[in-house]
Amino acid sequence: MGKPETSWRVVLVRPRNPLNIGAAGRAIANFGLKELVVVSPFEPTWREAKSAVGAEALMKSARSVESLEDAIGDATLVVGTTTGRRRMLDRDLISVTELPAWLKRRRSHRAAALLFGSEKTGLSNQDLSFCHAVVRIPTVPNCPSMNLGQAVAVCCYELARASKGAAPQAGLRTHRSNQATMQSLTHLFDRAVRLLDQSGYFHPKSRDAQVLKLRRFFLDRGLTNNDARILGGALAQLEWRLKNK
Amino acid sequence: MGKPETSWRVVLVRPRNPLNIGAAGRAIANFGLKELVVVSPFEPTWREAKSAVGAEALMKSARSVESLEDAIGDATLVVGTTTGRRRMLDRDLISVTELPAWLKRRRSHRAAALLFGSEKTGLSNQDLSFCHAVVRIPTVPNCPSMNLGQAVAVCCYELARASKGAAPQAGLRTHRSNQATMQSLTHLFDRAVRLLDQSGYFHPKSRDAQVLKLRRFFLDRGLTNNDARILGGALAQLEWRLKNK
Repeated sequence: MGKPETSWRVVLVRPRNPLNIGAAGRAIANFGLKELVVVSPFEPTWREAKSAVGAEALMKSARSVESLEDAIGDATLVVGTTTGRRRMLDRDLISVTELPAWLKRRRSHRAAALLFGSEKTGLSNQDLSFCHAVVRIPTVPNCPSMNLGQAVAVCCYELARASKGAAPQAGLRTHRSNQATMQSLTHLFDRAVRLLDQSGYFHPKSRDAQVLKLRRFFLDRGLTNNDARILGGALAQLEWRLKNK
Repeated sequence: MGKPETSWRVVLVRPRNPLNIGAAGRAIANFGLKELVVVSPFEPTWREAKSAVGAEALMKSARSVESLEDAIGDATLVVGTTTGRRRMLDRDLISVTELPAWLKRRRSHRAAALLFGSEKTGLSNQDLSFCHAVVRIPTVPNCPSMNLGQAVAVCCYELARASKGAAPQAGLRTHRSNQATMQSLTHLFDRAVRLLDQSGYFHPKSRDAQVLKLRRFFLDRGLTNNDARILGGALAQLEWRLKNK
């Protein structure tokens, strides 16, 4: 039995762009999170965002509240986000890449909140004072600031990864046919050599070396049964055509 | 000594929304990637996207091309993306979470392309036939489809993680000649199709499907320049013989 699942709430603090609120909602829904809370959005912004397409159910349940305290509510773990590299005194500053491992080391929380600041200014020091840790997405120094919707997507993606652990994902297996047997490869190879002999491909003097090279080529390819069938069919047809032209 | 760094090119195939193109550009810049190529965008869309804020330098260098082949160019590894769970026969379908590990297991490529389809339809089967593998972002079944800009952000984030984690692979390299370019593979492939057309290999009704299958076969073989030379010579000789019997 693992720890009880943490329910994450995404909190946008004073966002300005309705498209970003809608995009955040969509990412939250994409990764199976359930809750979006927005702190004091500009009223028309909020109205427009509520009708965003792509995550209708999630956006319908999204709430707007007056203060960050209201948004945090019953969450017992609060994590902020930053794109900057400013010092976080007495705060863990974690790369989002490390977030799953960091969460695993801590005791579980039934409800947790992940805060994102406004597009222009990010989270204020006041906002950050509520956070147990601050997460940074590892962007490059010369273009560190992410679009809000995209930052939410990357963080939700990591939270989903954290909750799944590293469990195997059913249905993501590859559908490949089996490796071809040595017999069928030899058969295929002999057919190719016969065809090339008929077409006059080999130089009499270097035929042996060319044949060896060709065999190596065949063996190196890691052909599957399926490949061997396709290739065998093509070679047979070519051979037939050469004889019956 | 590690493997040489792979330079990733993000390719958007027929995107419709200029905001998404701009958002893709910004994510690319955020994670230190260098190149955005867009296949046949709608002209006003492209003009608007070029002036997107947040990633000016990247968007300035972004190119628009006519065809997917042009966009792939010299890339020797091509990875598609999908939000669906449709079966990819004979293609590795990888969760993006596993992408760094998957890349580490393979030999290195100097240039690679990551393809994203249009917002409405994703990548076509024709587009996917160019791909060595297909990546899926592990979204939830009841809201699987991501916003294009956000999908690009999550993938670029994982590619950045992959390049940081690139571990040296001593002793795992054999002496192989260089990976064949997509151009030379396409050339080879076209020659094979012509030859098979001349020999009457294809069934008229299923020719398209057979050609797609054959292209996939060619791509999967990891052919080197040397291989391409040998194979090209054999095909040329067969073609000559069919004509001059």
